[in-house]
Amino acid sequence: MARIVMKFGGTSMAGIERIRSVAARVKREWDAGNEVAVVVSAMAGDTDRLVGFCREASSLYDPKEYDVVVSAGEQITSGLLAIALQAIGVPARSWLGWQLPIRTSDAHASARIEDIDTGALSASLAKREVAVIPGFQGVAQDERISTLGRGGSDTSAVAMAAAMKADRCDIYTDVDGVYTTDPRIVPRARKLKKVTYEEMLELASVGAKVLQTRSVGLAMKENVRVQVLSSFTGEDAPMADTLPGTMIVGEEEIDVERQLITGIAHDKNEAKITLTAVPDKPGAVAAIFGPLADANINVDMIIQNIAHQSSGSASATDVTFTVPSSDLARSIETLNQAKAAIGFQDLTHDTRVAKISVVGVGMRSHAGVAATMFKTLGERGINILAITTSEIKVSVLIEEDYTELAVRVLHTAYGLDAEPDAA
Amino acid sequence: MARIVMKFGGTSMAGIERIRSVAARVKREWDAGNEVAVVVSAMAGDTDRLVGFCREASSLYDPKEYDVVVSAGEQITSGLLAIALQAIGVPARSWLGWQLPIRTSDAHASARIEDIDTGALSASLAKREVAVIPGFQGVAQDERISTLGRGGSDTSAVAMAAAMKADRCDIYTDVDGVYTTDPRIVPRARKLKKVTYEEMLELASVGAKVLQTRSVGLAMKENVRVQVLSSFTGEDAPMADTLPGTMIVGEEEIDVERQLITGIAHDKNEAKITLTAVPDKPGAVAAIFGPLADANINVDMIIQNIAHQSSGSASATDVTFTVPSSDLARSIETLNQAKAAIGFQDLTHDTRVAKISVVGVGMRSHAGVAATMFKTLGERGINILAITTSEIKVSVLIEEDYTELAVRVLHTAYGLDAEPDAA
Repeated sequence: MARIVMKFGGTSMAGIERIRSVAARVKREWDAGNEVAVVVSAMAGDTDRLVGFCREASSLYDPKEYDVVVSAGEQITSGLLAIALQAIGVPARSWLGWQLPIRTSDAHASARIEDIDTGALSASLAKREVAVIPGFQGVAQDERISTLGRGGSDTSAVAMAAAMKADRCDIYTDVDGVYTTDPRIVPRARKLKKVTYEEMLELASVGAKVLQTRSVGLAMKENVRVQVLSSFTGEDAPMADTLPGTMIVGEEEIDVERQLITGIAHDKNEAKITLTAVPDKPGAVAAIFGPLADANINVDMIIQNIAHQSSGSASATDVTFTVPSSDLARSIETLNQAKAAIGFQDLTHDTRVAKISVVGVGMRSHAGVAATMFKTLGERGINILAITTSEIKVSVLIEEDYTELAVRVLHTAYGLDAEPDAA
Repeated sequence: MARIVMKFGGTSMAGIERIRSVAARVKREWDAGNEVAVVVSAMAGDTDRLVGFCREASSLYDPKEYDVVVSAGEQITSGLLAIALQAIGVPARSWLGWQLPIRTSDAHASARIEDIDTGALSASLAKREVAVIPGFQGVAQDERISTLGRGGSDTSAVAMAAAMKADRCDIYTDVDGVYTTDPRIVPRARKLKKVTYEEMLELASVGAKVLQTRSVGLAMKENVRVQVLSSFTGEDAPMADTLPGTMIVGEEEIDVERQLITGIAHDKNEAKITLTAVPDKPGAVAAIFGPLADANINVDMIIQNIAHQSSGSASATDVTFTVPSSDLARSIETLNQAKAAIGFQDLTHDTRVAKISVVGVGMRSHAGVAATMFKTLGERGINILAITTSEIKVSVLIEEDYTELAVRVLHTAYGLDAEPDAA
């Protein structure tokens, strides 16, 4: 017997037929004698509809009331799944955020889970009842409904698993695991059996959006074993504990002899900004990035060129950095407002760039990862516009047109291609 | 300054534009210095959608989970109205059933309000905040969401008004008041300025569906002054306290010199059943109506003909009664199953009948009301199939084809027609 949290996303909950399939899958874990809590998202599209209502009612909506409105989506699906479970003979009940309760901070619309009371829940599980829990919601200190921000249901599931000391948190999603890279680009990409929390964080934050970044960070902190599985394999598929999904675990569970690089990620949602002739003096960089931080714009890669002496003037330098494409317009506006304080000459920008990252905990003990990357890209004539590194990741910025080529040649160069005869 | 409950139905809440109109109307009462609580229905169609999901998930759905699902509709509109009010400068907040709380019985899906805690609400109203309260919902003794049954938002509004000791409960609906009869049948029908609770109960239960019957009963018990108003008059209409809606009040507020009859109601949703040759012996009637009561079928008018002696057999009688048309099929099935026990010969039925009722508290002190009715209908050749009376009502069953004619001639006979030159 194990204690399991199962999480199903909006696509899995879109309509009664699909909810029935979810119920059948939950029943199999329950039939096996497991204690099961299920965390559900709203029906696909429902949260967008409710958010749309709030925005239409007021561009500056009260986040407390927004939470009342949008939390209704998961309330609906949790009741429906409980009904569908009962219909196939599985005792089940829904537990809303305020009923458990799932205590959160007062930051409505982007609350943080602070504490989950599992007393009543454990008693219910011990009676062989399946608990159905709406994701994304909790109750704030002000005793009003709170929500965790978009994609928060993954976080709810991991937090539930931590609070319940669950043996496993199975996240059912529309992909069947985490791959070495995007299989649409590299057909020979392999599904990973295991990946570490840190690798998953790097992969998620650079574009392999299988899990919400926040949920992975929480899983790492709480040491929750998270498994990513497909919700669309048939009901006759193997049980989740033998299903070939991807398990996200601590580094200690990864084979020592595993390969250097775990995966290659790409992200086309970056935009490059260059400020020319920025005075090369103390405080210049702060003058650029301070206003952007104040505007809540996340700057990623930064390159400060070597200062060059303009004839007859003080020394100046070009500063290049990237921001999310969606924040480009606001970034330009913010920087132009600060133009006098920064003292730059021109601002140029380019959205036709992509960030390619190689990720792997093996990098810690092996040199030469970055060199292989630069050499491989150079051989194909791909120009590197910027570089950043972390302990387990090397990222480069390249022209967007080369994205697929870069991913493919790196996947081969690091020995990630599946054997042609492999399943 | 007054304390007012305003209630808006699903048509008034159907979409953000209409919710904005509701907000504007609430603002006018608030601007006048009143303390205002607003009770809202779900968007028109939303409750049907949610009920449909539950039925699709299981024909025998758990009413506790049904309540979780269907209560979401009013949760959504209450948050949206609070946002719309804030957007026009009116401080407002939503109070869900479990937050006030509105305590109900444990009869999920058809709960009864038992107690409303108005402590926090009163403090909020005193701070000049408008309270927005989802109708139809509460929290049961088991600490789970409960709902009051369909149409329960009127009851929520009246219960809130009673608990808050409100000066008035204004029910905004898609008619602009209670009329002497259906204006689509009698263009010279008059809107009533005042009607007593008891008259309203009789009018509602015989087909003039302006308010949910249960809410009128509660208003009578708690002595809540209920006003029925149109939600579709413009924003420049007079304030609600001078608006020409219909006020539903106790009998003591009605002019002594008012006329005999308040209104004429009609109801085409009855079906007539006749059982022939029922043995005329003790227990025969119980054998008929016992099984129907067990099947939760509401029998209305009953006529037992005079027993007639069949040649060579025990005396027998025909029994005729009416049931709601929607229960006709179940009634026939129930009676046929009990045929041996009842001992009737044939069962005939007819849905082409209508019940016409004249209602008025003046009847208590005046004789001759029924006689006028029979004489008026007889003069037009309208055959009376059955009769029932109460202290303030006389009802007859007639052939459905004569419905409009009967309503029209009775409206004239009791002097209810508006003066041709009246507004």
